[in-house]
Parts: sequence; structure tokens; C-alpha cells
Amino acid sequence: MTQGGEFDLIRRHFVRASRDAAVALAIGDDAAVVRVAPDMDLVLAVDMMVEGRHFFAGTDAEALGHKILAVNLSDIAAMGARPRWALLAGALPAIDDDWLDAFSRGLFALAELHGVSLIGGDTTRGPRTLSLTIAGEVPRGRAITRAGAKVGDDVWVSGTLGDAMLAVRALEGAVPLDGEAQSSVRRRLERPTPRVELGQRLRGIATAMIDVSDGLTGDLGHLVASSRVGARIELEAVPRSTVLARCLAGGHADVALACLLAGGDDYELCFTADVAARADVGRAAQASAVAVSRIGSITREAGLVVNDGAGRPLASLPRSFDHFR
Amino acid sequence: MTQGGEFDLIRRHFVRASRDAAVALAIGDDAAVVRVAPDMDLVLAVDMMVEGRHFFAGTDAEALGHKILAVNLSDIAAMGARPRWALLAGALPAIDDDWLDAFSRGLFALAELHGVSLIGGDTTRGPRTLSLTIAGEVPRGRAITRAGAKVGDDVWVSGTLGDAMLAVRALEGAVPLDGEAQSSVRRRLERPTPRVELGQRLRGIATAMIDVSDGLTGDLGHLVASSRVGARIELEAVPRSTVLARCLAGGHADVALACLLAGGDDYELCFTADVAARADVGRAAQASAVAVSRIGSITREAGLVVNDGAGRPLASLPRSFDHFR
Repeated sequence: MTQGGEFDLIRRHFVRASRDAAVALAIGDDAAVVRVAPDMDLVLAVDMMVEGRHFFAGTDAEALGHKILAVNLSDIAAMGARPRWALLAGALPAIDDDWLDAFSRGLFALAELHGVSLIGGDTTRGPRTLSLTIAGEVPRGRAITRAGAKVGDDVWVSGTLGDAMLAVRALEGAVPLDGEAQSSVRRRLERPTPRVELGQRLRGIATAMIDVSDGLTGDLGHLVASSRVGARIELEAVPRSTVLARCLAGGHADVALACLLAGGDDYELCFTADVAARADVGRAAQASAVAVSRIGSITREAGLVVNDGAGRPLASLPRSFDHFR
Repeated sequence: MTQGGEFDLIRRHFVRASRDAAVALAIGDDAAVVRVAPDMDLVLAVDMMVEGRHFFAGTDAEALGHKILAVNLSDIAAMGARPRWALLAGALPAIDDDWLDAFSRGLFALAELHGVSLIGGDTTRGPRTLSLTIAGEVPRGRAITRAGAKVGDDVWVSGTLGDAMLAVRALEGAVPLDGEAQSSVRRRLERPTPRVELGQRLRGIATAMIDVSDGLTGDLGHLVASSRVGARIELEAVPRSTVLARCLAGGHADVALACLLAGGDDYELCFTADVAARADVGRAAQASAVAVSRIGSITREAGLVVNDGAGRPLASLPRSFDHFR
């Protein structure tokens, strides 16, 4: 939450210092952290999805139920926390039992997978809009924020990047994909897998972490800004699906590159760790059954540099697509 | 939250038993309760407001900022809890700094009054929709639910009822009000005062409590249903403003009666307490600087009976207006 183009808006209007000593971390990270017990911190995040902006009208209701929870689980994962409780607010144009049945099926299937209980909600009529608040817990003081990256740390990312935005671009007709490729990337768009277990296993290993919801360059940009460092990324090392790799090599390299580096909706974890912790990162990834890739290093100079295959910095970085933001 | 006509929808699609022992109270009360510490329970609620449904297009932004927090504070108050932290999700048709400035001013003024910190949020473009999640705390096991009313208990209500819906009806042209009367009821509609202090002072005194957001008969109906009892209310004892009293006595008795008994958006507290606790209730009210009225009794027979001034049951109870629901 609180990322991308909305960043300035939020800073201008909604960031105020709290006098509450229990607020360990407020607006500006993947989630907020409050001290509720001597041994436990509560981690809270909210995400809102609007029809026509975050999802196409007519999107499968079961997929939406999955996704509104998945994007919030991803925020909790990015803090290294364990998700526990969710509250759902939803506006719907009409009471449609079939739609609600499919939506709740998608929501509860993912909730049960992660032991999350839906404990509250509010429903009303209105343009289709979903907002979910999630609460998780983490041992006191052990949440992984965006602010701990150190010069020399490795930069890592889980899974592969760019497929979700490639699906959007294909649906818009900007990239032709065959049926199998299309359904593979659409699945990434509509059924993202939050890296909940990996996030928790990285506690004590990752020095900083963020989830990739707005695109790698944007989100890693937030991480290095919060940590007051910079990063150098090797383009060749940025993990991609075979579908995206084919587009990159084919006639749609620009679109594919933009998806890879700046596509949103991936919900992978991007994190930093000391070079001495490479084996630990590998073990955490293996135990979570998620691939991780080392894509670069943290540098002293602020900002991001992405080197191409020949080691030359890209002249300009693709900007995030604005379609769904 | 989770009241009125949405009740069945929620029961059909979103109520599932939780296997989480920390969930002390889930969907179905004013707020959810989770056990986070040996001495403290966390109380969580969410409310969503949609333009054209919960507020008129063009409603003053500062008033909206006040109201989206006020309705959530009212849920926390109805549990006898202390509000602490809030997360805001908002869709806006465009970034409008003047609007956001006024909105955040209204929000933070009320937040600071009650020591609430805004710790998270998500903003996006879309039809104007606001969703706020609030977290509060209460000593373990001491949240006041809807389920504790006992036969013979007094039924109480704070403040006065019906003005908010009277304002809606006046704006719709159903009731003529002079300028002063109009602005007085509009203030109740746009700037409700959540009874946060009274709610906390009623811990250990009230046996059951709910906030009046959907109208007295509807909300008291939920309370008695949860408590498996009924209630008999004396119409003459139901507290009303002088503006509403004038409408009742004048040519708009039907509308005024419906506002009084079934108007929503009042955000007063309706609660029950043992007859031996009358002095305690009075002291809690006085210390909170809020008037309270004793309006009837809890009965063994299920359902609600409202007696008129002559002690005769009203033949039918007005139903909640559906304009804003």
C-alpha cells in the first residue's frame, strides 16, 4: 500500500506524526506496525481495488476474491509477518448471489491456506469496489521494513517478474500471445501467489524488503530511498518467465522490457541481504518452495542503475504503466 | 458494521467458523474482538461510504473526513473500547488538493480529539468511495457485545434520535424546515458525534450495547435477537430534538415518527443495564457530558413492541428508509 503515484498525495495530506508510542511504523512502508504486547507487534495493511482500474469489468469473481486477499497477504509477507485476521469492505452494484458465492469461494480458499480468519466487514451498493484490511503478527521488533539495506548487500527477488503486466498488455492488444502463453500470464495477473512463507523465513536474514506491486524499478526505488542507499541491477539476472523471455527476444522487446522492469501486480518479494547470508537465503527459499534470484547490489550512490547484458547502464528506465493505477 | 439489509447477504456468503482461538468475536457485532495479549483485546471494525448512497455528491469534504472516522469510532464506542489506530482506503475521481486538504482536516481534527493515529492507507482513482478500518483496545474479556441483555433490564439510548434522517428527508423536500432547523439537523447528518467516552464508561455497567446507525428499531432489534430476548419501548420516552418534536406535532407526523424510530445515521448508543444500575448509568453519562434516556425494558418475548402515549402498542413499526443504504 501507499506506493507509486499516490506517494506525494499521501505525504501532502495524510502523514502526520503520531504521539502514540505504540505506533512503531506508520504510513510509508508495506504495512504499519503497532506494539500491542511485550512479545508481539501487530502488522496492519489495507488495499483497495476498483473495477475498471485494478481489474477489468467482468473479471471472474472467484479470481477477484483470491486477488483482494492476495495483494494484502503480500504486504504482510513483505514485513516478514504472519497473517491472521482480515476485514472486508465492498461496494457492489447489486446483490448477485452467484457472484458473491464465487467471490467468497476465492477469498476463503486463500484465507484457509494461510490460516487467516475473516472477522469483520461492511457491504453496500455502489460501483464495484473492494477494500480489504489485514492484520498480522510478528515477534516484537522483528518486522522487516524497507529501511535496512546496507551498502554491499545483495538484491534479491522471488519468482519471476512482468507476467501480470504482460497479460494486461496482451488483453489490450499491444502484444500477440498464443492461447497457452495468454492463459499462463493471465493466471499471474488474476491469481497472484503471495510469498507469505518466504517472507517469514527471511526474518533475521533480509535487511530490507518490499513487495513488487508497482514494478521492480518503482518498488526497489522506494526501498533504496527508505534505506538512503542506491542499487545496481543486472538486467540479465532479473528473473522472467519463458513467455516474457520470448517476447523480449521477439518483436516486442520494448513492451516486454517495460513489463519486466516496471510492470505492476507481480506480488513477488524484493529484498536485500548481506553477501554472507547467501546460503541462508537459499535455505529460506528452498524451505518455502519459491525460487529466488540475486539481481544486483546495494550501492552508496542514491538511485537505481540497470546494466544491460554488456554491463552498460540502460540510458533510461521504463516507467510504470498507468493503466491500472 | 454488518447491519441492516446486508445482514442476510453476509450470513450467506461471509460467515464461516474460525479455527483461530484468538478470535473472540467475529462478524455479527459492532466490531470484531481478537485476543492479542494476556491483558488486552483488540477491537476491529470497518465502514465504507459511497457517494450518492451514504452522502450526497458535493458534500463538504471536511464533513466527510469527520464522518468516515465518526461512524467507525461509533462502532468502537459500542464495544466499550478505546479507539487507537485507523487505516484509510479511498477512491477519488481525481487528485484534488483542495478537496483532500479539507477532507484530511476533518479527519485529523476528530482523530486528534480521540487520540487516534492514522497508520496506513491506500488511495486510488475511482468513483468517490471511502473505507476506514479502526482498531481499538479493551481490557481482556470486557468488550460489551450485543448479546448480554437480560429480561427486566432497562433499555437506554444516548442523545436524541432521528435528526440525521430528518435532514435527508428535508433535503429531499419531504419536510419543510426553516433555515435554523435545517442547519441544526444537517449538522447531525454531516457531523455526527460518536459517544466514545460514554461507551468506555459503560464497561461493567451496560449488559449489551449497539450503536444506532440503521435506526432504533432495526438496531435494537439486532441487540435483542443476539441476546435472545425482546424489548418494550415507550414512544414518549424516546429522546428527540425540538426540531423533530415540532415535526411530530405538526403536519409531518408520519415522516417524523419514521425518522425517530427507524432513521439511520444517528450514531447514538443504545444499551441495556440492570435496574439496580440506574445511578451508575447516570454517573457515566454525566461524566461523559452526554444525556441518556431510559426508553423501555427487556422482555422475555422475542421482538420489539413500541407503546404509544396511551400505552397501546403501535400497530406497525416504520421501516428504515432505504435511500442511503
